[in-house]
Amino acid sequence: MTTDLTAHFDRILSAPVFGHLATRRRNGTIQVNPMWFEYDRDAQTIRFTHTTKRGKFKNLQHDPNMTLEALDPENPLKYVEVRGRLAEVIHDPEGAFYVHLGQRYGNPHQQAPADKADRVILVMQIDKIAGR
Amino acid sequence: MTTDLTAHFDRILSAPVFGHLATRRRNGTIQVNPMWFEYDRDAQTIRFTHTTKRGKFKNLQHDPNMTLEALDPENPLKYVEVRGRLAEVIHDPEGAFYVHLGQRYGNPHQQAPADKADRVILVMQIDKIAGR
Repeated sequence: MTTDLTAHFDRILSAPVFGHLATRRRNGTIQVNPMWFEYDRDAQTIRFTHTTKRGKFKNLQHDPNMTLEALDPENPLKYVEVRGRLAEVIHDPEGAFYVHLGQRYGNPHQQAPADKADRVILVMQIDKIAGR
Repeated sequence: MTTDLTAHFDRILSAPVFGHLATRRRNGTIQVNPMWFEYDRDAQTIRFTHTTKRGKFKNLQHDPNMTLEALDPENPLKYVEVRGRLAEVIHDPEGAFYVHLGQRYGNPHQQAPADKADRVILVMQIDKIAGR
């Protein structure tokens, strides 16, 4: 990948844009949801706030493959696709990471969610970054 | 599904927004790409322009499951997720459907693409519409 393309992908992944996260249901159908996320370039991970009660969490127990796609906020003809797999689940019973992401996405007064007791951080290890 | 929710999903799917289409690669990873699309409420289908040379086409020969997600252009906290499967592939060697979608997405002077000889229309039969 060229340095220019790497910088372009880094720029999209560092912006507070919604990502579109795909996982696979146990019945073989694919689930796609808009998600907040945070990219760590050094660790090559992407972190999401989620709960242990929802579909994606159950999907990932069955099949750890996950792919995130995000449009370039400055040019919708460009995008990044990040493939990876679930590497770690971190309990977040105070919803602190939810609050952190809420702030990152523009709400300085973000409160913890009502379901904070079930909150976890999903850590996706990146295998490949592509796009245009 | 309530009438209100149905109308909400219809409104998103009728807008010229980018959809995020997920298919599954032969190696088990999930592919997600931004796509133009056209929803037919009566037929319960979604049509895409594509080519026979690209990854999604090959993925769908192997696993016909496909899911499209689109954000509400008026409220990014709302979205629709459409699950279905590839029902038909229609050859489009003049790229006429590409031109039609280009016009739908705002370019009245859309020209046929350079790869028009390989163009096909992917027809997705809808199994389920969800979201919020």
